Amino acid sequence: MRWHQTQLRLKPRARGFHLVTNEIVTALPELREFKHGVAHLFIQHTSASLSINENADPDVRADMERWFNHAVPENARYFEHTAEGPDDMPAHVKATLVGAAVTIPIRDGRFALGTWQGVYLGEHRDAGGARHIVATLWGE
Amino acid sequence: MRWHQTQLRLKPRARGFHLVTNEIVTALPELREFKHGVAHLFIQHTSASLSINENADPDVRADMERWFNHAVPENARYFEHTAEGPDDMPAHVKATLVGAAVTIPIRDGRFALGTWQGVYLGEHRDAGGARHIVATLWGE
Amino acid sequence: MRWHQTQLRLKPRARGFHLVTNEIVTALPELREFKHGVAHLFIQHTSASLSINENADPDVRADMERWFNHAVPENARYFEHTAEGPDDMPAHVKATLVGAAVTIPIRDGRFALGTWQGVYLGEHRDAGGARHIVATLWGE
Repeated sequence: MRWHQTQLRLKPRARGFHLVTNEIVTALPELREFKHGVAHLFIQHTSASLSINENADPDVRADMERWFNHAVPENARYFEHTAEGPDDMPAHVKATLVGAAVTIPIRDGRFALGTWQGVYLGEHRDAGGARHIVATLWGE
Repeated sequence: MRWHQTQLRLKPRARGFHLVTNEIVTALPELREFKHGVAHLFIQHTSASLSINENADPDVRADMERWFNHAVPENARYFEHTAEGPDDMPAHVKATLVGAAVTIPIRDGRFALGTWQGVYLGEHRDAGGARHIVATLWGE
Repeated sequence: MRWHQTQLRLKPRARGFHLVTNEIVTALPELREFKHGVAHLFIQHTSASLSINENADPDVRADMERWFNHAVPENARYFEHTAEGPDDMPAHVKATLVGAAVTIPIRDGRFALGTWQGVYLGEHRDAGGARHIVATLWGE
């Protein structure tokens, strides 16, 4: 049984969905030591998210952001948690809808993603700053 | 390799989002035996959910509930599964949107949550009763 | 520590939510070798999803599909990623809302699901074809 746990720091990004697969894989050279296993990526924030989606056309990420902005509007009349800015409460809702963690199978030293899959960071604040991830790998 | 699996019972709660971190940690003293690892919390119901969100201002939980009630309205004209009450089908949709499980890294005998993170129980029924969770911890 | 990783193929299905618990359990006879553990099911696609919801009344799955179609409409004016058909971008959004993976506790050689829980495949394309899942089991 092999085990690896570390903290990663994702550089600050603009609000929206961002493809971060390469940044994460580069920070996890230990991946190569696992013949099979699972990777758990956990973002330690409540206004950003991690998910798996298309790694090709950037329009998908822009449309994703537009859908979420439409579905979780700023300044909805029923929001009362407004002291931290109009983007704050929608960011919390988006974080719950998308999720704080992804789990990815590892096979032959790599993420066993489908051809079109990548890891998305959802930055849901206008100025969220750097984001911290706890990465845990286990397997054989 | 250390391993622990147990069933927890969360006391009945009103419809809405509830911070349950302390109740769960108190029921898992075995957490302290893990230097690093992962905790998996799985709710055995289809009308309640688990998620990670802000542990501070209760307004966030109230706004979260208001957003979900707005987005998944009772008595939507297209719902046909109505025999179990108007809150039932929206509860199933909310359970799928939020999720039945959370996975949390363990570090130095504690959940490695961010400063502002806690575990939310989403109680999506008007009278859901007690809720059962299977907690599994693994690591070293 | 016991470990099993394999790839499953789900047969093509119509757009909508489908109960696939039996199909998955049948393809994983190794489940019976685990006294306790966790199963990770990961779908290698960005326009289909996995989730846990009610295993009984088929109306729940039909209502789930209707809610998602209402919430993530085809031909929304703000979608720009339209070259792959009107069902494509909504499928990506639904895949992120529902998720690419489920994790399920294993107890006494079976999924430790609640009485009313089953595994849903969300097929979000009109003609998605066969879908591939990486299943990973670990435990004792």
